[in-house]
Amino acid sequence: MSLLVVGSVAFDAVETPFGKCEKMLGGSASHFSISASYFTDVRIVGVVGGDYSEAEQSVFDKHGVDTSDLERIPNGKTFRWFGRYDYDLNTAHTLDTQLNVFADFQPKLSQASKSARLVFLGNIQPDLQRGVREQVPNAELVALDTMNLWIDIARESLLQTIKGVDVVIINDAEARQLTEVPNLIKAARTILSWGPKALIVKRGEYGAALFTKDSYFAIPAYPLESVFDPTGAGDTFAGGFMGYLSSQEKLDEAAMRRAMIFGSVMASFNVEEFGTARVEKLTPAEINERFRAFKQMTNFEEIPFQKA
Amino acid sequence: MSLLVVGSVAFDAVETPFGKCEKMLGGSASHFSISASYFTDVRIVGVVGGDYSEAEQSVFDKHGVDTSDLERIPNGKTFRWFGRYDYDLNTAHTLDTQLNVFADFQPKLSQASKSARLVFLGNIQPDLQRGVREQVPNAELVALDTMNLWIDIARESLLQTIKGVDVVIINDAEARQLTEVPNLIKAARTILSWGPKALIVKRGEYGAALFTKDSYFAIPAYPLESVFDPTGAGDTFAGGFMGYLSSQEKLDEAAMRRAMIFGSVMASFNVEEFGTARVEKLTPAEINERFRAFKQMTNFEEIPFQKA
Repeated sequence: MSLLVVGSVAFDAVETPFGKCEKMLGGSASHFSISASYFTDVRIVGVVGGDYSEAEQSVFDKHGVDTSDLERIPNGKTFRWFGRYDYDLNTAHTLDTQLNVFADFQPKLSQASKSARLVFLGNIQPDLQRGVREQVPNAELVALDTMNLWIDIARESLLQTIKGVDVVIINDAEARQLTEVPNLIKAARTILSWGPKALIVKRGEYGAALFTKDSYFAIPAYPLESVFDPTGAGDTFAGGFMGYLSSQEKLDEAAMRRAMIFGSVMASFNVEEFGTARVEKLTPAEINERFRAFKQMTNFEEIPFQKA
Repeated sequence: MSLLVVGSVAFDAVETPFGKCEKMLGGSASHFSISASYFTDVRIVGVVGGDYSEAEQSVFDKHGVDTSDLERIPNGKTFRWFGRYDYDLNTAHTLDTQLNVFADFQPKLSQASKSARLVFLGNIQPDLQRGVREQVPNAELVALDTMNLWIDIARESLLQTIKGVDVVIINDAEARQLTEVPNLIKAARTILSWGPKALIVKRGEYGAALFTKDSYFAIPAYPLESVFDPTGAGDTFAGGFMGYLSSQEKLDEAAMRRAMIFGSVMASFNVEEFGTARVEKLTPAEINERFRAFKQMTNFEEIPFQKA
């Protein structure tokens, strides 16, 4: 009953209108696994350099994240991302990216990783994603994330990879760019026609939507009066979504809907502080309380009208 | 148990990427009243010119809309709006506006209009809205719509008017512009602090949200694969919202939530054809079917998680 994530473990430097952090634990696999750890056992496949220290490792250890497949290259440096957000916190401006050890990353899966029940292919080169997907033929559910960069420079490989997964998790701009269809509902139908059973479209402050061949589910975002640092919100969402699913016996539509809520709950906490700071110190009670808040803010009675 | 709307009755000329219509019934009061007529008895206060004919009148008659307070100026011309939408159907480009008889519009309320239980102040000059509001002191609920033009050129008057109403219905860009607060949740709190009991924020393809002092309710838009003509969607929403409320005895939070859904249902029909064409020929069964679809697409089970 375990969950595997393949992705980056990084050091981020982030500037927002509210503050600045020069070096903190980041990367898709970090945000994903810490978020998922509240719901299930999670393992990371990734790579770090000699600058990865006990301080970072202790965060994973504290959350029971299995890092046996996190490769260490003592002579190399960990992936670094430098970003800035202006008052429009929806858009990240990349100031610098230093791939370092990540440039030659070749995911290596141990036997334990290969037998994971659920797998999340974080936002890495689509050939690598496909390579991992082929090593987990018995996984019950495989999901992937991607980004505009891969749509631009590795489109064919990405389409190939999408064909082989069960769930695609992207944002609305990416869905439009990937399909070249401006209407989101049509774009979603197009992506589903390529093979995946489900598509999740993240819409930032507007929430998220889940599309399957014959259903549509849409939820708002948790209403936050201030967003401090949105870095990693998407991976934190995916971690909550996949982590919750991993805790469930049946991966049916009803479970996916609840997983959408837990994903949104985790993402809403993520943006309240720098990096993984807020999600690191959550309690199950806080998570469930915000889950209930989602029910409160979306519920209405189903009473048809009748004109008097 | 009646509903009053004050607003424009107009002739619209609209170009979209899908077609062109040179002259059709439009204006806030038209879209609002036809939409509301499915739920309640509705009356219009407005003004038209000599070019307003039996063809237009028969639309209102067919829907039982009371036009006794629709002033006719035989020597004048009806308000005309010329607009264009590009492939981004979210933004209307105004090509020309001819106010005509609307330029000197002074709303005149008969005794029957003054005793309406619910009142909707369509998007007209805020001084006029306030003048109407003062003539319906016993109305149980008064709502208003406005637009960027009035925020730009009549801000103080608009703020004054907002203080005196129960519900404000605007879009998200207007909420931000009105308050000069970029975060929508904070902007909403600001508007509520001025006096209204409720604020409805329309978010186009992302749905709508209802804010009160101590609650938040958010719904997606109905997922449409094609939008044909968005003209009047906002007023059609308001018509469904106010029309449904008018059919209810208790105007409480639960009724407002259902009214949000009926408003969204009506707006989703509105955009499927030019002008009022689609909404004119609806059946109660179609409306209730789409209402049920909203329940389907927002429902999830409230089961807290517990890590195994």
